[in-house]
Amino acid sequence: MRTLWQHCHVASMTDGRYAVIEDAAIVTCAGLIEWVGPREQLPAQAVERSVDLEGAWVTPGLIDCHTHAVFGGNRSGEFEQRLQGVSYAEIAAQGGGIASTVRATRAASEDDLFASARQRVLALMRDGVTTLEIKSGYGLDLASERKMLRVARRLGEELAVTVRTTCLAAHALPPEYAGRADHYISHICEQMLPALAAEGLVDAVDAFCEHLAFSPAQVERVFIKARELGLPVKLHAEQLSSLHGSSLAARYQALSADHLEFMTEEDAIAMAAAGTVAVLLPGAFYFLRETQLPPMDALRRHGVKIALASDLNPGTSPGLSLRLMLNMGCTLFRMTPEEALAGVTLHAATALGLGHSHGSLEAGKVADFVAWQIERPADLAYWLGGDLPKRVVRLGVEIPH
Amino acid sequence: MRTLWQHCHVASMTDGRYAVIEDAAIVTCAGLIEWVGPREQLPAQAVERSVDLEGAWVTPGLIDCHTHAVFGGNRSGEFEQRLQGVSYAEIAAQGGGIASTVRATRAASEDDLFASARQRVLALMRDGVTTLEIKSGYGLDLASERKMLRVARRLGEELAVTVRTTCLAAHALPPEYAGRADHYISHICEQMLPALAAEGLVDAVDAFCEHLAFSPAQVERVFIKARELGLPVKLHAEQLSSLHGSSLAARYQALSADHLEFMTEEDAIAMAAAGTVAVLLPGAFYFLRETQLPPMDALRRHGVKIALASDLNPGTSPGLSLRLMLNMGCTLFRMTPEEALAGVTLHAATALGLGHSHGSLEAGKVADFVAWQIERPADLAYWLGGDLPKRVVRLGVEIPH
Ligand SMILES: [Zn+2]
Ligand SMILES: [Zn+2]
Repeated sequence: MRTLWQHCHVASMTDGRYAVIEDAAIVTCAGLIEWVGPREQLPAQAVERSVDLEGAWVTPGLIDCHTHAVFGGNRSGEFEQRLQGVSYAEIAAQGGGIASTVRATRAASEDDLFASARQRVLALMRDGVTTLEIKSGYGLDLASERKMLRVARRLGEELAVTVRTTCLAAHALPPEYAGRADHYISHICEQMLPALAAEGLVDAVDAFCEHLAFSPAQVERVFIKARELGLPVKLHAEQLSSLHGSSLAARYQALSADHLEFMTEEDAIAMAAAGTVAVLLPGAFYFLRETQLPPMDALRRHGVKIALASDLNPGTSPGLSLRLMLNMGCTLFRMTPEEALAGVTLHAATALGLGHSHGSLEAGKVADFVAWQIERPADLAYWLGGDLPKRVVRLGVEIPH
Repeated sequence: MRTLWQHCHVASMTDGRYAVIEDAAIVTCAGLIEWVGPREQLPAQAVERSVDLEGAWVTPGLIDCHTHAVFGGNRSGEFEQRLQGVSYAEIAAQGGGIASTVRATRAASEDDLFASARQRVLALMRDGVTTLEIKSGYGLDLASERKMLRVARRLGEELAVTVRTTCLAAHALPPEYAGRADHYISHICEQMLPALAAEGLVDAVDAFCEHLAFSPAQVERVFIKARELGLPVKLHAEQLSSLHGSSLAARYQALSADHLEFMTEEDAIAMAAAGTVAVLLPGAFYFLRETQLPPMDALRRHGVKIALASDLNPGTSPGLSLRLMLNMGCTLFRMTPEEALAGVTLHAATALGLGHSHGSLEAGKVADFVAWQIERPADLAYWLGGDLPKRVVRLGVEIPH
């Protein structure tokens, strides 16, 4: 059904700028944008339906390009213990930290994982999210990683949201491989990735490059296998120290390198040349009370595309709102509201390999957009938390709420 | 109608502790809590209706005890300019800052102010807020302050939320009194407060004690007039510097002193003795990127009751979520989740003079509560942003959403 959406202003986010069209019209057909522009230039054509957006500002549907939305249990008990003065060492001795999430995820049924993740994804969707990435990485064995990725696929089937899956088997060393990280990497490369890819469960491959996780050499083995399997890569890099994982990621034409607080100017140059997106995660920065800021000036100077994501995960960023990350990107990282909005639209799409079809309002792209009752686009980053009045359209169809 | 609410756990917040009752039951009647306790001790009595809360955790309805929810315009344009590198001085020269909010508030009709504030209050209510305070303070003349307070009253009449109004005429110096602060204080004391109080628009009186606003001597004149009128007082104190406004507030048995980053141990001793609640505002601390933390240890050591609030306002905390302030109270100020929850329930009620009737789940108090689908009470502070599944009950009646 060809639909005309009008009485609105558009921030199309073409080329990552607001690219404002005042008094705009959008024509959608078969789930795609057929035309968008100033209403007075609307081509004469038959439309079957016309929708009055009542002066709203229309942006692309928001894209959360880095989440760990599927997990068992949560870590609020640990959060409380830490604030009561219990040390990290004591919590670790009790089996806390990521180990507790791995145990709970392995123990959970697929239905239980689906039910808890569904609530979290619905929370993200309430902010206008129409596409999100979901990583595995709390299973750390073939059956449990498969279970997580199947849940992620099912979320995309049952909810009005597009899901991209990422296999993060190289997230942490599972207890049964203690002291044998290279063996675990071999297991990932020889068993897990080929099996999960063959089942169509993997849209991209990720790893955690850090002293407390995997070395650049170990990550590179994973990347080589991903390339063999024809899968794009991403990397958790430079969150706590500088190992130049982001430069490694760039050498493998990674879609993105994520976190990046400790990256160097050389890393930025490599990423810009490779087109690797910098995914910044201010929720984790805030939640961990970090002080090392990502090098915004170097990223800008070298033209690295910058995305923002929730990093929704139980340990370091239990963030249920992508719009809150716009505010944190501006307040904590001094991004402009325009950069922040580009970071959850066009550049987030690029970080998922979807830059050709998602993330901006242009003819030929999917008709995913949000009509916000706001005064100007900067409102999306300005309001701190809460819910802004909006209508959400996905594939040309308005989502009831 | 006598109603039994069961299949739930209760964090009653009696005495500001979780005071957990597992497998609890609550009996409400005529808008009040008639009985609350372990279900197995439920007295035999006729109930007309029984509600299954499906294992939820029940807390008192949340109370936001410090907001400036009524204002004209917003300052997202200024927020964007600052992030684009425009200086405060340039923005002030353009007529920005609080002066722009005063102009927009004076120019707005009562209906316009109501419509914009209604959206913001609905956002707060979506987090389980059943009571909130709303200050005037952007009118700064009798007619405009009256208009703000009338809008605040009307919000309480038209929405399912209890509103307490505070007259903050001594918020800033209006342009027509430039250089004549003492004259403006006289105008407040002789004209504004008596008139607004006579109209029943004022539940409490507040002022802003700071170098860039009013001196302790000027604040004291306002407090003396409030006492004459039989109105309780509150104070914005020690946000940017130490003027001992909080000790002054304590001398006038203030309900609360608010902000308090620069308060001293002596101030804490005075507040504890007077029963003046410390209202902390982590949203403003975050939004302004402050570094001076309120003296949590001194507050705890001397037994000052600590509340948390959104400070919802267009300049320094455009915060639309009180639950986000729980997370910020814990993450930024290192409160425990239990302290944070007491800060938006019992101690927030006390900061509004409602400690006898609101803020905890006890027989005889109003039946305002929230049934949360969470694993444990700490979840309320742990999850960062977004919306948690819940049912909200006010005066014994479930609010549809
Ligand atoms: Zn991550
Ligand atoms: Zn205030």
